[in-house]
Amino acid sequence: MIAGIIGATGYAGAELVRLLSGHPKIDGLALASVSFEGDRIEHIYPNFLGKAEGFLVKPEEVAAAAKVVFAALPNGVGESFAKTCVEKRIPFIDLSADFRFDDDEATFSAWYGKPYVYPELRNHSVYGLPELNRKRIKELAASGSVIIGNPGCYPTGASLGTYPALAKGIVETGPIIVDAASGITGGGREPARAFHYPECADSVTPYKVGSHRHTPEIGRNFDAMIKAGSGTEKQNPGTHPLIFTPHLVPMNRGILSTIYVPLAGAWRSKAANAGPPRPPLAEVIEKAGEIRRLYADFYRNEPFVRVLPEGAIAATGRVRQSNFCDISVHLDQTGTTLIIVTAIDNMVKGAAGQAVQNMNIIFGFDETAGLTAIPGSF
Amino acid sequence: MIAGIIGATGYAGAELVRLLSGHPKIDGLALASVSFEGDRIEHIYPNFLGKAEGFLVKPEEVAAAAKVVFAALPNGVGESFAKTCVEKRIPFIDLSADFRFDDDEATFSAWYGKPYVYPELRNHSVYGLPELNRKRIKELAASGSVIIGNPGCYPTGASLGTYPALAKGIVETGPIIVDAASGITGGGREPARAFHYPECADSVTPYKVGSHRHTPEIGRNFDAMIKAGSGTEKQNPGTHPLIFTPHLVPMNRGILSTIYVPLAGAWRSKAANAGPPRPPLAEVIEKAGEIRRLYADFYRNEPFVRVLPEGAIAATGRVRQSNFCDISVHLDQTGTTLIIVTAIDNMVKGAAGQAVQNMNIIFGFDETAGLTAIPGSF
Amino acid sequence: MIAGIIGATGYAGAELVRLLSGHPKIDGLALASVSFEGDRIEHIYPNFLGKAEGFLVKPEEVAAAAKVVFAALPNGVGESFAKTCVEKRIPFIDLSADFRFDDDEATFSAWYGKPYVYPELRNHSVYGLPELNRKRIKELAASGSVIIGNPGCYPTGASLGTYPALAKGIVETGPIIVDAASGITGGGREPARAFHYPECADSVTPYKVGSHRHTPEIGRNFDAMIKAGSGTEKQNPGTHPLIFTPHLVPMNRGILSTIYVPLAGAWRSKAANAGPPRPPLAEVIEKAGEIRRLYADFYRNEPFVRVLPEGAIAATGRVRQSNFCDISVHLDQTGTTLIIVTAIDNMVKGAAGQAVQNMNIIFGFDETAGLTAIPGSF
Amino acid sequence: MIAGIIGATGYAGAELVRLLSGHPKIDGLALASVSFEGDRIEHIYPNFLGKAEGFLVKPEEVAAAAKVVFAALPNGVGESFAKTCVEKRIPFIDLSADFRFDDDEATFSAWYGKPYVYPELRNHSVYGLPELNRKRIKELAASGSVIIGNPGCYPTGASLGTYPALAKGIVETGPIIVDAASGITGGGREPARAFHYPECADSVTPYKVGSHRHTPEIGRNFDAMIKAGSGTEKQNPGTHPLIFTPHLVPMNRGILSTIYVPLAGAWRSKAANAGPPRPPLAEVIEKAGEIRRLYADFYRNEPFVRVLPEGAIAATGRVRQSNFCDISVHLDQTGTTLIIVTAIDNMVKGAAGQAVQNMNIIFGFDETAGLTAIPGSF
Repeated sequence: MIAGIIGATGYAGAELVRLLSGHPKIDGLALASVSFEGDRIEHIYPNFLGKAEGFLVKPEEVAAAAKVVFAALPNGVGESFAKTCVEKRIPFIDLSADFRFDDDEATFSAWYGKPYVYPELRNHSVYGLPELNRKRIKELAASGSVIIGNPGCYPTGASLGTYPALAKGIVETGPIIVDAASGITGGGREPARAFHYPECADSVTPYKVGSHRHTPEIGRNFDAMIKAGSGTEKQNPGTHPLIFTPHLVPMNRGILSTIYVPLAGAWRSKAANAGPPRPPLAEVIEKAGEIRRLYADFYRNEPFVRVLPEGAIAATGRVRQSNFCDISVHLDQTGTTLIIVTAIDNMVKGAAGQAVQNMNIIFGFDETAGLTAIPGSF
Repeated sequence: MIAGIIGATGYAGAELVRLLSGHPKIDGLALASVSFEGDRIEHIYPNFLGKAEGFLVKPEEVAAAAKVVFAALPNGVGESFAKTCVEKRIPFIDLSADFRFDDDEATFSAWYGKPYVYPELRNHSVYGLPELNRKRIKELAASGSVIIGNPGCYPTGASLGTYPALAKGIVETGPIIVDAASGITGGGREPARAFHYPECADSVTPYKVGSHRHTPEIGRNFDAMIKAGSGTEKQNPGTHPLIFTPHLVPMNRGILSTIYVPLAGAWRSKAANAGPPRPPLAEVIEKAGEIRRLYADFYRNEPFVRVLPEGAIAATGRVRQSNFCDISVHLDQTGTTLIIVTAIDNMVKGAAGQAVQNMNIIFGFDETAGLTAIPGSF
Repeated sequence: MIAGIIGATGYAGAELVRLLSGHPKIDGLALASVSFEGDRIEHIYPNFLGKAEGFLVKPEEVAAAAKVVFAALPNGVGESFAKTCVEKRIPFIDLSADFRFDDDEATFSAWYGKPYVYPELRNHSVYGLPELNRKRIKELAASGSVIIGNPGCYPTGASLGTYPALAKGIVETGPIIVDAASGITGGGREPARAFHYPECADSVTPYKVGSHRHTPEIGRNFDAMIKAGSGTEKQNPGTHPLIFTPHLVPMNRGILSTIYVPLAGAWRSKAANAGPPRPPLAEVIEKAGEIRRLYADFYRNEPFVRVLPEGAIAATGRVRQSNFCDISVHLDQTGTTLIIVTAIDNMVKGAAGQAVQNMNIIFGFDETAGLTAIPGSF
Repeated sequence: MIAGIIGATGYAGAELVRLLSGHPKIDGLALASVSFEGDRIEHIYPNFLGKAEGFLVKPEEVAAAAKVVFAALPNGVGESFAKTCVEKRIPFIDLSADFRFDDDEATFSAWYGKPYVYPELRNHSVYGLPELNRKRIKELAASGSVIIGNPGCYPTGASLGTYPALAKGIVETGPIIVDAASGITGGGREPARAFHYPECADSVTPYKVGSHRHTPEIGRNFDAMIKAGSGTEKQNPGTHPLIFTPHLVPMNRGILSTIYVPLAGAWRSKAANAGPPRPPLAEVIEKAGEIRRLYADFYRNEPFVRVLPEGAIAATGRVRQSNFCDISVHLDQTGTTLIIVTAIDNMVKGAAGQAVQNMNIIFGFDETAGLTAIPGSF
């Protein structure tokens, strides 16, 4: 089967090239790039030499040649390709934000500054977080027309870290804080001062405090995950507002999310309000264990979520080059707040790997096909 | 004036050597090291060659030669040197935790696993955060016997970031979250797996979640800062419990603290509970500006605190090699939570620089003497 | 087929675990570790969770269970395991230096400070640089008893970079300079000051100038490669003495070798001695192209050597996580000296990957089996 | 005294701002920037907040206000400012290549692609390597009109490393190889793909092999240093051709040069041609010591050159933020080749610090004024 990639020369596109070149069900790639049309992919990425070679063609040629099309384009420019694919009944897996908000065009346009081009395409689209929407992905695939709104990198880690807590109703009403740190590849391939080596090496800083575009996506997921847990249509949307602070750290790959979730009464440590000098650690540890088991049970059939055992803490270095999302479960020392740490490779589970996972679901392949890489030890 | 350093070969000790060698009031150094007694400092640190040279002697010889003694020792081993100095009426500036808890031996022993050796020394000691305790430092100095419990690295950034908010009473009762990230020098000079290059490069991870020893120090400071603001003795201690999560990031120097403070009603954005799609940014920005002015005014006379203007965000790379604490003030998009970001060089304002600042106060030197380094641009 | 690894918890061992776990011909692993016997590999390396799990057993149990044994042990301690394997006619692939010097025990003992334990084992051993000794590896494999002396990391890059030049006789008598830079994983997993993050981050330095143990191994290879090219037994050994300077650079993986080779007259640019202001670049470029074609032709059937096209320069970042050795061919501006740049991943082609390649040759597997990873783009 | 900087917002310019702000003889700065005229320096570099503030004005205003002018501009655009300063008898210190080649316009134009604008200015200019040209700098300063052609970053490390050997005639005719590695700040402040964080992190690579513009500058210095040693006008220029390979390594600051110098007969180890297995180390060490003493003696009065003792190896991390050039002296194991390692901070001794050193010489200040920073330990 030929897979097509539109926008193959950006970082997410290049990661798709890498993953699909090693995918057992993919026999060849058709690659398009606006910036480098006519050039060769192994010239742009010399690491591909001898492994993933070929000319970069026009997007139309990709759509003509491929049985599945991935788009790794800027926001707001890929809808026409999606339309073509829907008409040709070719699955379209979109890594931009264009199809992440379903029919909520208002939120999309408020944050991304542009309207939907073909709003009706959302009849065929689904937010592609497999752990949340696997069933719907399969339904649309069966219908013959499917567009995947592949999740953003931050929303993937933030959502997988909160899903069990929200779905199982152990959270007290109130804000959830997601404090996240990303490697520099998250900024893409285009040189810019913020990602210039001397500007970001040996430094750490937040950015877009209170205004990052992934905020509404994560917030919407909170509501969707509550609803998925309860099975009912509306569950007081917005009961768990989000405070989201992204940081830039000097590393290439990875997103770490440290998530602070206020616990509902029954899930708090009994001695939650006990004062200093030292909290009753045994009780806190026991409660954390209870919630850790809840998480492990919730994800027991998920191939790419690893709930870490007691004593382990998620680290981006332990998932690099893999499609895993590692989750570690902790309680703060007062026993009132759940602290969830998640780690993903931002370019794999946070982008290209998740896109391939969605393709596997659509085509009925083993969901791990092409995604079996073991995380590097260093 | 001769300054002495006991524990001169650890990272904090070496940073003291560097700063004191360039201090206009210091004519010479007397250096002691248990591990390297008899060796030369420029042999251990070849960067000092030609600039800060000399043999490492016994601690007793340091106390005999110096007019001020700095101790950069493990916790719980330096009290006898403090005692000697008090008896000789030589200021003793201690970078360990031994004198950070004043007469609250219970908290110290609960978290550090050992009792005070000479509890009565706390009659002469003060927690050396100049912005909070400058007056008391001067009083003790005037008394002739002064021990400084130099603050921990994390507590410095966390406390300076919350002091104006707590002192001015703009905070709602409830937990304050400090999500902090440290460079690897925070782990000290001794090799260990956690600080082995391949283990921490290109990765980020929290550690000691819910159990770091700086937690009680920061929590105690919260109470002290409320009290300092109100001027009254007891102000419901513990009304602002702390959730503190330290992270390790691949850089040498620096601590970034992202601090989430729930705002009291009057300080929230009026439309704080307004829903999606988009918050009324103008109102949030205005409220943030109000609090930023409050911060700037609060610190207007502090030589080492820089409250950044609107639009700027604190970054560790902007304070490196300096004694500055940069603070940026933000509101979350819902207008309910104050987000304070502070950046320090963990080895300067977070350790050796603050110790020198304390020395300057004690001796009546210009408080910036020896600490005038401009942060490097890269 | 079960593969065994003795010394599975060091960095080279862990990389073997990772590669062999994804190898299509390997059904299971038997892992031994002296330091962590009884523990589990996924506890030592949490990145292996769910992918490569199991208890660490005794070396004897590994030898009993496996059809091939890899040893990633310190120098001088693995010979008894090799002996056992030879007796059981199980291939033994040794990543230490013990079997790299064939019957030249004098050189081994001069540089490694110990004698051979079972000198007669060298009747069954071969230096495992496949590009040089593939034929001999197959012969020994056919004989039923084979020990591989897997090459050192530096010698792999240095030898592959000089082999065509030496075999084809385009080199003038005289010293060849290998200036090489390694990532920190080359120092192994044990914490040490030289590999402590703050000591090596943001700095570069040579080490063991003129005295690194890989020097005699590279020098011996020079002679072997000349001999391999000429087909005759003795070709004035030592006509190309080696000057080798290893450097430590702040990165995790990779070795870059910049190699300076004095060219024989016929291969020099004609205007080699032309003076300033500017060399006749066209001529230099033409001569470089000639030698580049010679290199490309020499390696045309090698699956893991990529001779880069004109204009490209080898970089470690382009081969990371792969078994490739990238080679770029240049001439200095005076046209007298060949400058060869090679890049490998020190833990793959420089250690574990090459070991797997040797296993593939021994067992007649496709030589790239388990080694098909495409280098990451970042 | 007011110092002016034209091109204050590039990296070298910013480093000048930092150093001059702390200089005891400088009372104020006048700063110009083409790109950011009208903006404020502390807005471009927030690290300067509260320490080095002010508007960026036109170059003409700088020349009008200052008693010394530094220019950190692209090559070939600053001559008119130099002319103005010469006419006004204000020292002009130029960090571009425009005045590095004295009256050899042919070499300049061959490598930089443009002619001199005002060739006659070279009557007043001198190549500003103080260790080589201190006397001439003073002479020109005394004449009232002085232009400094501040050396390039690579030439500084390469020249200081070879000067004693060339001046003392211990080198055999033939090529000298300079294999050098630079931190990324060497590429300047403008974002570009080669300096984009994900492209250079965790990788090392040479660039411009055989064609870097610093080649003719270093080669010219070889001749000048031989001449300076012998005291005669012409000493067979070009007898020591240069092979120069720059590398890019993932760090912010620093240049390490590993320099291979063929030794004249008398300076070789007697057993230079002794074969394997092991060289006579004692003899090699003795010879290295002899040359090390020669180097130490040669530089005994230089305030910024540190010849390291036996056993130490130069590392960029040991000179960071300082104006030092560290030099370590080694012999290769065969005793025929001198291996010199030099380390500088590329932005200090390699650029801005050296410029300040030149200013100090011109004005008769203590040569170390404003340059007393002790290198950071980390």
